[in-house]
Amino acid sequence: MAEYRFVSRALTREAFASFGDVVETHGASHFPINRGAVERFHDLARVDVGGVASDERAAISVARCLTPVAAPVRVQVVERHVLGSQAFIPMSGDPFLVVVAPRGDTVDVTALRAFISNGSQGVNYASGTWHAPLMAMVADQEFIVVDRVGPGDNCEEWIFDESDEIFVVTEP
Amino acid sequence: MAEYRFVSRALTREAFASFGDVVETHGASHFPINRGAVERFHDLARVDVGGVASDERAAISVARCLTPVAAPVRVQVVERHVLGSQAFIPMSGDPFLVVVAPRGDTVDVTALRAFISNGSQGVNYASGTWHAPLMAMVADQEFIVVDRVGPGDNCEEWIFDESDEIFVVTEP
Repeated sequence: MAEYRFVSRALTREAFASFGDVVETHGASHFPINRGAVERFHDLARVDVGGVASDERAAISVARCLTPVAAPVRVQVVERHVLGSQAFIPMSGDPFLVVVAPRGDTVDVTALRAFISNGSQGVNYASGTWHAPLMAMVADQEFIVVDRVGPGDNCEEWIFDESDEIFVVTEP
Repeated sequence: MAEYRFVSRALTREAFASFGDVVETHGASHFPINRGAVERFHDLARVDVGGVASDERAAISVARCLTPVAAPVRVQVVERHVLGSQAFIPMSGDPFLVVVAPRGDTVDVTALRAFISNGSQGVNYASGTWHAPLMAMVADQEFIVVDRVGPGDNCEEWIFDESDEIFVVTEP
């Protein structure tokens, strides 16, 4: 048995860059559209649908996280989608937790990273980035999801050994 | 000179079907993911990026509407994007106004339709659907935008004759 504890950090574009995009207006460039009535923060996240099959496309869905995580937050499984990106953008302004590991065919426990979105930040996992299931901190939080619809199996799970007790430390 | 007045209606999937998708969980089918912790309201909107050029893709952006519309709401211009769909999903829960006209190479004033989103509803304009610029009802409302990035001119405007005074009636 081994116990691993890793500390969550504030989500920033720089820290998250190797895992995907952060969808936030803070610090993003923008330009006016609609004759100056609207500012567009353009192309904050690249939607990747693979581009292999002719019947694949992006879709907009909503994910409602019924059960919030509670301390201590244990990570028992991560998943990856190798055929496309997957974005989660909170609709309520509530913070949520993001746990990721680098792309690759195996997951190294010590390479896990955790981030806390401030609630006005969404994430877009790059294709192949390992990530924990959705981790809201309040019940029934809703997220806009933008990801791929198409043929093929696009979800792989990595289940950690039962004897590995992996915890995210969210308290300062 | 001619004056046109048309009344805005509540946004519903059925009423909006010929213009695109309504992104809302209400009345949408859903299924559990993440071992039951999350409900996914799947594929509420089809993202269409045309599929012609190899360097076109979908992007996630944010549009901040600086200036809200004020009564009387006059429509002077509509636009269309013939190379892809364009979604606007409110992040704040505030209602906004949606003005559309059917696809086609010309815009008939009498075919304009107006809808009010209840604030938990987004819209996804189908490729080619004429629509008014973003019409928020409070200042600085932000919207998630999902649309096409790629080569080619993807925005056409239709400017109504100055002598046509077109108003949306939002009051009951």
